[in-house]
Amino acid sequence: MAVPLEAVTIIPGGVASPRGYRAAGVSAGIKANNGLDLALLVSDVPARAAAVFTTNLAVAAPVVVSREHLARTGGAVRAVIVNSGCANACTGDDGLQVARVMAAETAALVGCLPEQVLVASTGVIGVSLPIDKIRGGLPLAFRTLGADQGSQAARAIMTTDPFPKESATEISIGGRQVAVGGMAKGSGMIEPMMATMLGFVTTDAAVPQPLLARALREAVNDTFNAITVDGECSTNDCVMLLANGASGVAVDEASYGEFVTGLTAVCRELALGIVRGGEGATKLVTVTVTGGATAADARKAAKAIANSPLVKTAIHGGDPNWGRLIAVAGRAGVAFELSRAAVTIGSTVLFRDGRPYDEAAPQAAEYLKGKDLTVSVDLGAGRSSSTVWTCDLSAEYVRINADYRT
Amino acid sequence: MAVPLEAVTIIPGGVASPRGYRAAGVSAGIKANNGLDLALLVSDVPARAAAVFTTNLAVAAPVVVSREHLARTGGAVRAVIVNSGCANACTGDDGLQVARVMAAETAALVGCLPEQVLVASTGVIGVSLPIDKIRGGLPLAFRTLGADQGSQAARAIMTTDPFPKESATEISIGGRQVAVGGMAKGSGMIEPMMATMLGFVTTDAAVPQPLLARALREAVNDTFNAITVDGECSTNDCVMLLANGASGVAVDEASYGEFVTGLTAVCRELALGIVRGGEGATKLVTVTVTGGATAADARKAAKAIANSPLVKTAIHGGDPNWGRLIAVAGRAGVAFELSRAAVTIGSTVLFRDGRPYDEAAPQAAEYLKGKDLTVSVDLGAGRSSSTVWTCDLSAEYVRINADYRT
Repeated sequence: MAVPLEAVTIIPGGVASPRGYRAAGVSAGIKANNGLDLALLVSDVPARAAAVFTTNLAVAAPVVVSREHLARTGGAVRAVIVNSGCANACTGDDGLQVARVMAAETAALVGCLPEQVLVASTGVIGVSLPIDKIRGGLPLAFRTLGADQGSQAARAIMTTDPFPKESATEISIGGRQVAVGGMAKGSGMIEPMMATMLGFVTTDAAVPQPLLARALREAVNDTFNAITVDGECSTNDCVMLLANGASGVAVDEASYGEFVTGLTAVCRELALGIVRGGEGATKLVTVTVTGGATAADARKAAKAIANSPLVKTAIHGGDPNWGRLIAVAGRAGVAFELSRAAVTIGSTVLFRDGRPYDEAAPQAAEYLKGKDLTVSVDLGAGRSSSTVWTCDLSAEYVRINADYRT
Repeated sequence: MAVPLEAVTIIPGGVASPRGYRAAGVSAGIKANNGLDLALLVSDVPARAAAVFTTNLAVAAPVVVSREHLARTGGAVRAVIVNSGCANACTGDDGLQVARVMAAETAALVGCLPEQVLVASTGVIGVSLPIDKIRGGLPLAFRTLGADQGSQAARAIMTTDPFPKESATEISIGGRQVAVGGMAKGSGMIEPMMATMLGFVTTDAAVPQPLLARALREAVNDTFNAITVDGECSTNDCVMLLANGASGVAVDEASYGEFVTGLTAVCRELALGIVRGGEGATKLVTVTVTGGATAADARKAAKAIANSPLVKTAIHGGDPNWGRLIAVAGRAGVAFELSRAAVTIGSTVLFRDGRPYDEAAPQAAEYLKGKDLTVSVDLGAGRSSSTVWTCDLSAEYVRINADYRT
């Protein structure tokens, strides 16, 4: 990358911050509590679009329809319509019909073809999405569209999320400014396989289709695909990226590095927001695995650690129980050499050269009282590394998910 | 099998019930609360032995030593010494030395070779096992050995287990009675890869070594290896099987079926006891997957469902949230056909032919108030099936594991 990721400044703003986009978030009455539940994002001109979708084989209707529309238009998108409160998943042919009507009604208001509209839904699986409520809410959403309404849209896509996730940045390409903005939702059922949860990112750069798809894959791999809350991959996951060219700045191979760095910074901020707001989460945990025989091994071990209920509960309890980290590394199905392995919590080494450093446990316990933590495991089997992000596992996670529908 | 598994009667008794075995359980002061923490099992004559051990690459010292001893003796075992309160795992060369001394001191009391003693430990990982306490407790354990002390031994191997796990049966081979008895411990860090937790099974049948090993593998596969509490495979897992021939009855190829059925019945009872006593568990859940393209697919999907925090919390909350079962099946990495898939809770169909049967939800919710539950998923992709057992996920699991060492 031309610019290091750390050098990118995240600024206030979201999905409607780049030029030529407007957003809205309204209540259509889908959620029982009359909260915001319908978000609309419109680009003033057809935007190039790329998307990554869930790898869950039980794909939801909106995923099927959005995939069809992207294929049919070649990625010239005018609008994205998103509802929360109902996932429209496992709803059969009726569900597909509802997703198609959502796109068609949005297209009628915006003045474009139905296939120029992408659709996303999030909420309970297996419940019919009431199309009448979408129909009722759409005109209000259209009327309230504004470049200053991004944060309302970010709120309208929330389910169990404790706070909205927005992020934006400006990057310089050939001395001219290009903006990237985004919003995301997600709190439980979070472990990306290819994409995860709902994420919507916009840019006013002009980016050719193949470059846009490549940039999205690259950015997602180290952000949305590197987080987990509970190891669950949903039926509705998607990240959509729109590029409308309103800045008049074109991205090409020469400036691809700058663009993907800015895009990655925005995606990372959104992804970390999802983990910070994970169901019941009280701590953000960065899991770094080094010493992997391969990059795939390092990622697999990092994911296993990040999903381990014993690791996540120990961190919740502030217990520097490094033995659990070693035990997960040993069962992760990757190359692992106990005699060369090491565990570090914060900057405190607790296990190395085959022996414990228990005298350092109090220092690690003190560190674990913090809210933003790093735990590192050296597999002792090579030189590859990987970083993933997770949260702790609290009794509140159980409470939220035992009572989700009641 | 010659006798169906359901026809086997489980009777009171445990590891010292078959003829020619004595057991003891005493307090050696390893546990802080002065609870029972040292178990000794002795066979009056050398017993054929077979064992399966953890596949975790971070193997604990007692696993290393027991493997060595089995290899060296060819499986002629006189005693098993087990401590709880400390796993003697990740303890380096010192830990290996401690495990060897445990065997040697036991051998001196019993009057056999050190390699005729198997060793097992369970408890906190990465803490040194105080050999002086083992030395101090061993003579008392030896003095209290008795055929009526099996339940004391079963108590002495417990850590977070809410109750001891014992099981026994009598099987008829050629008109003569043979006994099989066992004990096990395990509550958290439970997901067998090859073997799991600590399990000790005895029989007074005479069984040749290769047949004994084959019977153990077969029995373990559908019992200990078919349970999960939290998807964690420990560093110390092992199941050991001793056959001392004290009944005068020999098992051969012709009577193998009877023997393995009885052995499986005892192992299943112990394995289900572990799940019923899983950390924080309030419900035993039988997960049945049908319609798998292969047996491996069916098992993989069943394990994914049994380990899903969203499924386990829904069951804890009595929520017939079948969408989560479908979502897990879809992400399990196995062949899955949504349009042919089905979800059944108890005997209530909630999803089939691509559509929900939400009108049946109240009936399923009523069923979920029970303590012994079955959930079934048809993958719609073939004819293979698999059954695994799990428990629900409660806030108590989090409490236990957030505070384990404090």
